[in-house]
Amino acid sequence: MTRLIHFRFCPRSRSIRLALAELDVVAELEEERPWEWRPDFLVLNPAGELPVLVLPDTAPLCGTYAISEYLDEATLGETVRECKSELFPGTTQSRAEVRRLADWFHNKLHLEATEPLLEAKIYGRLRSDGPRAPDLANLRAAQANLRHHLRYINHLADQRSWLAGNDMSFADLAAAAHLSAIDYLGDVPWDEVPAAKSWYMRIKSRPSFRAILADRLAGTPPHPVYAELDF
Amino acid sequence: MTRLIHFRFCPRSRSIRLALAELDVVAELEEERPWEWRPDFLVLNPAGELPVLVLPDTAPLCGTYAISEYLDEATLGETVRECKSELFPGTTQSRAEVRRLADWFHNKLHLEATEPLLEAKIYGRLRSDGPRAPDLANLRAAQANLRHHLRYINHLADQRSWLAGNDMSFADLAAAAHLSAIDYLGDVPWDEVPAAKSWYMRIKSRPSFRAILADRLAGTPPHPVYAELDF
Repeated sequence: MTRLIHFRFCPRSRSIRLALAELDVVAELEEERPWEWRPDFLVLNPAGELPVLVLPDTAPLCGTYAISEYLDEATLGETVRECKSELFPGTTQSRAEVRRLADWFHNKLHLEATEPLLEAKIYGRLRSDGPRAPDLANLRAAQANLRHHLRYINHLADQRSWLAGNDMSFADLAAAAHLSAIDYLGDVPWDEVPAAKSWYMRIKSRPSFRAILADRLAGTPPHPVYAELDF
Repeated sequence: MTRLIHFRFCPRSRSIRLALAELDVVAELEEERPWEWRPDFLVLNPAGELPVLVLPDTAPLCGTYAISEYLDEATLGETVRECKSELFPGTTQSRAEVRRLADWFHNKLHLEATEPLLEAKIYGRLRSDGPRAPDLANLRAAQANLRHHLRYINHLADQRSWLAGNDMSFADLAAAAHLSAIDYLGDVPWDEVPAAKSWYMRIKSRPSFRAILADRLAGTPPHPVYAELDF
């Protein structure tokens, strides 16, 4: 059985949940709190990071980069038999554009906005050694950074059918994964970025998105329109 | 003409200089100081990050992820005619291992050690608005983190012919690029990690490494054994 080790609000994990659903690969979800540094988890991924995809008979695949490229290559092989969508569509040049943006969302947007927002509003409260008070200066910086990233996503969505070009790609899944986690908290100022909003409505309506819209965390209800397809 | 926009101590840029040399691709080097946020540079890469590879007739390729995968794919096409070495050798599973490690070195090692070390000892002094005093707590944390990473590299070098497996790969180039920048500063405790040291001696002796060992910065001479092949 294929297992995905994830945390429900981890945007990197969410992007792989979306990719698996788009490719019709069924995986059992297993939740991990990577900040607890569980020894058994560190054996699977010594980097201590999510997500980790455990396939039968192969070493664990660690991180969005290795996993997304593996899934893409495997669609030409035996592991993923019924591929309906390509994560890196098009020419070598178009694939480079998907990778540039996946890297942007999973590293730059992650560090500058998603991670500090999640740390302040979710992870900090779940620490086993007691909740941590959010660092308000970090939180404000992350919210300001988010606006810059949203303007860039808005610009891409305004110029192109999908963020990396004519076809939906892993770049869209990565961006949507991050924004969905932030949107749970109600921190995305959608009205300032109409093209990004309309792109997000399209991607949010895909069947692959359903499981993510059903995620909940006890004590932290989602923003009212989190799961609304028309918001 | 192919141009690589880089900074001579930027480890990510160095990994692509090594990859180009291994693949026998000639590129003109153009130095950029990304912390100056030059508008003309931001047009090429709105992320404001290095490296950027500018090929004739295509959009600029931004970042090690997009560039390394492009070079790998292009070895099957027309752009890189005489490929002597593969950046991601082997099966889909071995390629995933190369990617896991390239990601580790270019993101985790970079954030936790290389970048704060370079910031404290090189970048901070080159600011156009005047030198910045190094943050000593950050510097000490980076040096402590570096030891953890070195032990992991030592473990890999002890178990395998090359870091990701039987063949040299982009994972080796990425790790060597980071360690070479730190080694210029004399901050790598090689004697604590004999297997890593012997792996680094092997990779440092390759012709692709020569240009990097010739890099100098006025006012900051290299550590005495920086360019020695037998150290």
